[in-house]
Amino acid sequence: METGKPTFDTAKLDRLLDEASIDAVLVTSKHNIQYLLGGYRYFFYSFMDAHGLSRYLPFLVYIRGDLGKAGYVGSPMERFEKELGKFWMPETSFANMTTAQYAASAVAHLRRVGWDRGRIGVEMSFLPADAYKVLVDGLPGAEIVDATFPLELLRTVKSPAELDVLRTASEKVVESMQAVFAGFGPGATKNELIAALRSEEQKRGLLFEYCLCNIGADFNRAPSDQVWKEGEVLCLDSGGNYGGYIGDLARMGYAGTPDGELQDLLGFIEEVQQAARKPIREGVAGKEIYLDPDALVAASPLRDKLEFVAHGMGIVSHEGPWLTDRCSVPYPAYHADRPLEAGMVLSIETTLHHPTRGFIKLEDTLAVTADGWEAFGDAGRGWNLR
Amino acid sequence: METGKPTFDTAKLDRLLDEASIDAVLVTSKHNIQYLLGGYRYFFYSFMDAHGLSRYLPFLVYIRGDLGKAGYVGSPMERFEKELGKFWMPETSFANMTTAQYAASAVAHLRRVGWDRGRIGVEMSFLPADAYKVLVDGLPGAEIVDATFPLELLRTVKSPAELDVLRTASEKVVESMQAVFAGFGPGATKNELIAALRSEEQKRGLLFEYCLCNIGADFNRAPSDQVWKEGEVLCLDSGGNYGGYIGDLARMGYAGTPDGELQDLLGFIEEVQQAARKPIREGVAGKEIYLDPDALVAASPLRDKLEFVAHGMGIVSHEGPWLTDRCSVPYPAYHADRPLEAGMVLSIETTLHHPTRGFIKLEDTLAVTADGWEAFGDAGRGWNLR
Repeated sequence: METGKPTFDTAKLDRLLDEASIDAVLVTSKHNIQYLLGGYRYFFYSFMDAHGLSRYLPFLVYIRGDLGKAGYVGSPMERFEKELGKFWMPETSFANMTTAQYAASAVAHLRRVGWDRGRIGVEMSFLPADAYKVLVDGLPGAEIVDATFPLELLRTVKSPAELDVLRTASEKVVESMQAVFAGFGPGATKNELIAALRSEEQKRGLLFEYCLCNIGADFNRAPSDQVWKEGEVLCLDSGGNYGGYIGDLARMGYAGTPDGELQDLLGFIEEVQQAARKPIREGVAGKEIYLDPDALVAASPLRDKLEFVAHGMGIVSHEGPWLTDRCSVPYPAYHADRPLEAGMVLSIETTLHHPTRGFIKLEDTLAVTADGWEAFGDAGRGWNLR
Repeated sequence: METGKPTFDTAKLDRLLDEASIDAVLVTSKHNIQYLLGGYRYFFYSFMDAHGLSRYLPFLVYIRGDLGKAGYVGSPMERFEKELGKFWMPETSFANMTTAQYAASAVAHLRRVGWDRGRIGVEMSFLPADAYKVLVDGLPGAEIVDATFPLELLRTVKSPAELDVLRTASEKVVESMQAVFAGFGPGATKNELIAALRSEEQKRGLLFEYCLCNIGADFNRAPSDQVWKEGEVLCLDSGGNYGGYIGDLARMGYAGTPDGELQDLLGFIEEVQQAARKPIREGVAGKEIYLDPDALVAASPLRDKLEFVAHGMGIVSHEGPWLTDRCSVPYPAYHADRPLEAGMVLSIETTLHHPTRGFIKLEDTLAVTADGWEAFGDAGRGWNLR
């Protein structure tokens, strides 16, 4: 088979690696392998990793500035994917079934192309300890460093094709939620509601990843047999995977006719969400998104029960741009003072833990554009009634 | 919440750890966490691991012979699962979002219970390199060793409840395949057949993991737009997950009326499969399974195109018992000369790469019993016709 051309921005990767003084990277995470191979996620190990006494561990070897020296290290049956033209790199190796074998093949590739030296980047959280030892022992002339951040920065601006997939993913998640709100009422359990959402997402071609679900003033978000009762709010917050990208939104339902207080509470959350959108456009510093929402929350009597957060998303549910260090994940606030770029995709979330009315939340997905933003799957943001 | 009791055989784990001179284990693989927590797989990270610049990395800390000192290290929202009684251990810690944080919490737990010393077992293929470094730095008085094999031996004999789940998983996979064979004929593509199988498995409550698919004499097993034509064999080999256990079987379809040669070829594969079953019962050495199948294959004119293999399965598609070192995974042939035990579950596979008639395979699932075996999902083993 002929080898193809990478679909990602190789010049950008070269620049990011150069800024981090990294000569070559050994990519082992499923999300970055997917990105660097134009959507490839090996189907046989898509859900599981474990096999025998070890696990699947692909390596994509990338030499800065020298595409011709790239390589892919995979498992035996991935040779079928090679026949189908899935790998753009000239060299591949598929005789690997244990982490140690995969790592040894990566080392052998680096030796063949003369890069068993210099600064070699790896993803330290996605490289098993035994594979790491094989690299350390096999590359005595190299310095092994963490390349996670440059690899994450590479994915931060989405292509038009990626935006299409993310738009579709978001729309399908919201449509699935609307179908559940329309089809179920008081008496349904969380487990039934989640099973129904799973089924609605699958019907639409999504891979259901999870649903966080809240009923009434119970702040427990895990699946259970809790029953949705008349007069209780229902929050569905679900991640559905479409073409390797996550749709992740939250919408509210209510069993009955929401009274004025409930209208006001969701109305306030909507106000915060809209305040976050207002400044968004190419060129604005990332932290701008937080200013008006923070002021609104600070002025609310419910301020102690409110949380506002915005973060990037795409293949991973929390990825770049890195707008703040306030997220649950310890982020560098790298984009707080850097300009947003067209093609960045943001998840924006406002959550209220109301002591008597319950868990009320909206989570939206927005793409940054040259002159503003586009909201993906923006339907169903009021009270969805049964 | 009250803490409960573990559902696994703690005395067996203690014995296995004692034999390996291991004082405590830090379990981080999803499959062993599931096993040690009686079926628990944290829903939010069931499909993905990545989050921000790091990943989900639960630790189950088990001190040999001292259940009261066990601990669980998880992610923030797993406290909801604790409220639901999912964790039997007295101590839990949920303020972790990066591999380094999870590992540091595991170290802190070991210190609190006085086991930051001795031989500490980990799963080297399922422990990220950065987390491993945190352990090494944080446990200077301990020796960190690999505990993968004792943990794998622990799961080798299934409980009646596990056997029920595996039986159901197998039956649902085969029923799904039969629905696809009945519903599709020549003109369907591999992608369409696989999508239909996915949908049939999902309808039956399975989590579709993968389908290896062959049409005719094309030995490529990956999904593609290849069209199933009149007179071609179709092999479906699929893994469907039910309650955390895999159903993994292969069945054959044919578009037309199979001629005598095809009947003979599948008949021979059936003969090999049945020969493998014959010796199976509690007390027989694992290698006995191979004797008659190997003799049959050796006597066949197609011997160079035939493969026979048998291996354990359960939560993982290839796990104990370890019958042979002939599998694609480098196994220790640990059970080759040890007796099979009632409750072990085996996957038995005979594959023919016939140069003109194509890829013909049966894969069956058998549980070892006191006086023989029980085949799970044993339907549809002839030519499934359209």
